[in-house]
Amino acid sequence: MSQWYDEVFEDKSRFGLKVRQTLFHAKSDFQTIDIIDTELFGKVLALDGTFQTSVKDEYYYHEMLVHPALTTASQIKRVLVIGGGDGGSVREVLRYPEVERVTLVEIDGDVVNACKEHLPEIGRAWRDPRLQLLIQDGIQYVEKAEPESVDVIIVDGPDPIGPAVGLFKKEFYRSCRERLRKHGVLAVQSESPHVMKEAFCRIVSELKHVFRNVRPYFGPVPIYPGSGWSFVYASNEQDPLEIIDRRIQQIENGCRYYNRDIHRSAFALSNEVKQGLGLK
Amino acid sequence: MSQWYDEVFEDKSRFGLKVRQTLFHAKSDFQTIDIIDTELFGKVLALDGTFQTSVKDEYYYHEMLVHPALTTASQIKRVLVIGGGDGGSVREVLRYPEVERVTLVEIDGDVVNACKEHLPEIGRAWRDPRLQLLIQDGIQYVEKAEPESVDVIIVDGPDPIGPAVGLFKKEFYRSCRERLRKHGVLAVQSESPHVMKEAFCRIVSELKHVFRNVRPYFGPVPIYPGSGWSFVYASNEQDPLEIIDRRIQQIENGCRYYNRDIHRSAFALSNEVKQGLGLK
Repeated sequence: MSQWYDEVFEDKSRFGLKVRQTLFHAKSDFQTIDIIDTELFGKVLALDGTFQTSVKDEYYYHEMLVHPALTTASQIKRVLVIGGGDGGSVREVLRYPEVERVTLVEIDGDVVNACKEHLPEIGRAWRDPRLQLLIQDGIQYVEKAEPESVDVIIVDGPDPIGPAVGLFKKEFYRSCRERLRKHGVLAVQSESPHVMKEAFCRIVSELKHVFRNVRPYFGPVPIYPGSGWSFVYASNEQDPLEIIDRRIQQIENGCRYYNRDIHRSAFALSNEVKQGLGLK
Repeated sequence: MSQWYDEVFEDKSRFGLKVRQTLFHAKSDFQTIDIIDTELFGKVLALDGTFQTSVKDEYYYHEMLVHPALTTASQIKRVLVIGGGDGGSVREVLRYPEVERVTLVEIDGDVVNACKEHLPEIGRAWRDPRLQLLIQDGIQYVEKAEPESVDVIIVDGPDPIGPAVGLFKKEFYRSCRERLRKHGVLAVQSESPHVMKEAFCRIVSELKHVFRNVRPYFGPVPIYPGSGWSFVYASNEQDPLEIIDRRIQQIENGCRYYNRDIHRSAFALSNEVKQGLGLK
């Protein structure tokens, strides 16, 4: 008999998916990993009971996390992805022929192994020779990386609780800035602007301590709570609305959600977001 | 002890709210009406187990349903709202001094009475002398109304199932067109473009049988499923991006979500929406 798998949000709401089958369940050194087959989203990855991604809706999140940075950065030869053990973000990065190397730093090797086995539809680029996969702590990796060696950093982390908290602090963002080349771009996921408004505003504020140009943007992610997700584009030199034509022409036709109009529109700020960020 | 109130979507997913207190429960001639006080959204209206609106998130829906039509229609003296028994849509309509009369046609008088008593924060304009409230079938009302007598029609209906199905058919949209003045505008809610894509595409298609200019647009509604909701702007003469400056200046500062940037951005179409609508 099929059962509900519920993600509970602050004991105030829950979002449940009807499960057809449990494909994988394990406790790693860091978290509980579940991969379940569901009626609505097909195969779903959950970490510590929180839905991370699904084969049916993953493109919303991965396209919107990756492409605004990659279509606007002046150079994209070297890309670093922190987190993102399902492989969806590096897959989108590797669609650009200009990318020479992408380094994926995921703390939990068990997540990568489970996703390689059960969610191959998401991480379709594991065998790309330009991909370097490192299983280690992303914060430590960035601290020790060579200065000004990276063009784009993508932070594909979980919610800012427990061990991931450090991925949302200005100290980490400062390390990222030091590893980025002068025209480099950082893109991070930044929670729901509606039901997690405080966390969202805090992330933007931490980034503003470190980067001159900090621009939140928005997109739907059906499996996440709160009717839409937020991301932040941060750079000292680049403008997120100056899209490089050649790049977007290569990329947008292969996207299911993202395109030039969506890119431009995603940066519009509602009145309450402006107010939350002290912009009005 | 507090309990979960779950909205179940096609037996595939469920969204549950932790209930502090049940404020109202009744079966009307049309549906089951619940008003509950919840941890996440405060007071919530549910009809037949489906969340309709809440005091904490209602502005997203009501602002986005009403303002794109009202800030662009060439004239807005006479406005008709079909459904919307919570009073949120007419409240937003009545913020425009140019509106001389708004007629609210709600089929279920019990919904209006329950909302007047328990959700006064939403329907703040019940006493406005420009409001005419009629408890009757909206489809029949529109069929019999005087031709070319209305500037804007807002359809604030429930999901297209059961008795509400007729609100989503081209026959009804044709009646609406005949009641609208030449430059009139129709705005309708049109379901989730992500998890109810088929219903969304069907509504747009039905409208295209009747109106020359049919433009879907999007916005978050945290209490609804699917990470973002859709609306459609339909007109024979008006362009939804030609905002009337004087009107938006009057309105946007009093909005929590809507403003000029949000208006323009809301009409961007993702690749999958274009494909679903046969536009690429």
